[in-house]
Amino acid sequence: MIEVEVKLRAAHEAVRAALEAADAESKKRLTQVDTYYDAPHRDFAETDEALRVRRERNPPSSDSGAEPAGSDAPGGHRFEETVKVTYKGPLIDAESKTRAEHETAVADGDAAAAIFDGLGFEQAAVVEKEREYFVLDGYTVTLDRVDGLGEFVEVEAEASESADVESVRDGAFEVLRRLGLDPDEQIRTSYLGLLLEDAE
Amino acid sequence: MIEVEVKLRAAHEAVRAALEAADAESKKRLTQVDTYYDAPHRDFAETDEALRVRRERNPPSSDSGAEPAGSDAPGGHRFEETVKVTYKGPLIDAESKTRAEHETAVADGDAAAAIFDGLGFEQAAVVEKEREYFVLDGYTVTLDRVDGLGEFVEVEAEASESADVESVRDGAFEVLRRLGLDPDEQIRTSYLGLLLEDAE
Repeated sequence: MIEVEVKLRAAHEAVRAALEAADAESKKRLTQVDTYYDAPHRDFAETDEALRVRRERNPPSSDSGAEPAGSDAPGGHRFEETVKVTYKGPLIDAESKTRAEHETAVADGDAAAAIFDGLGFEQAAVVEKEREYFVLDGYTVTLDRVDGLGEFVEVEAEASESADVESVRDGAFEVLRRLGLDPDEQIRTSYLGLLLEDAE
Repeated sequence: MIEVEVKLRAAHEAVRAALEAADAESKKRLTQVDTYYDAPHRDFAETDEALRVRRERNPPSSDSGAEPAGSDAPGGHRFEETVKVTYKGPLIDAESKTRAEHETAVADGDAAAAIFDGLGFEQAAVVEKEREYFVLDGYTVTLDRVDGLGEFVEVEAEASESADVESVRDGAFEVLRRLGLDPDEQIRTSYLGLLLEDAE
């Protein structure tokens, strides 16, 4: 599987109206807080590696009457949190963006952060975003509101083989146009990269 | 809580007979495979830190008729595996062996190992043991068969405060004597330490 993804800046209000008009299906909403680490012994910016701890929280759906036990939010709602640790290795093939990636869920995110901290890894950046998924014409449309960066839209689908990439990408462009967006405004830099650019 | 622990070498056959004669309660059996890592940027032997990935497997109890789904053993039995990552910081107080310790369960042990491998940590040693717990006179008696080292017995209990440590230790010595063992043969080196000594 090859992931085909197109991302651009876009005010969500207009996109949301277009998604409703197109009868797109809203899938789920969540908050992702990604902490990226610097290594004590090499420069990840140079080696193109990344170590990330991702905390993902699903707010309780508003139409659910059930009140889960426990509470870690002011309103007495409990947010389910999942935490994943991900390592992305150096690019093996720059053109195809091939790299080793290892990921595992961890039971205790604070402990995982404390382990990396103890080992000498330092927090390089935190990327926090609210994310909402829709499905339209077989594509996943993601509305991201990224702290410090603003609003973005991603359109994404999978190609089963290299030969299909172009037609899948054309389809993604078509979805963008249906949402009133211009594929030429595509951004290729990651949110982390955009935040670090801003910090320079 | 202060952990009071006395460990010594002892052939299990005689100890097991003594445990049976004393009507000690057998609690559980498991296999622990501990992988210790060396750091790429500092010498853990010098800093007295440790990074460990522990895989713990509970063999299916022999008196259980139920056959859990799945299989990862030749006999078609499934072993439940839990994996924990633990970081032990440098000693803050050598006398009391006080140190920071952070631990979290991880969903995917192979991924956790691959993450540390990718980050440049190297396997320093693997300590593999079969462990069986008994309870006798309020003490936990652990029979460890450690690969490459042989058979050990640990007697352990918790003291609620420093003032109680001596009486709890005396009780542990008494348990050892009931099992036909000599408290003077106590070993204070960890299994990892013993294995590394042997390797020298």
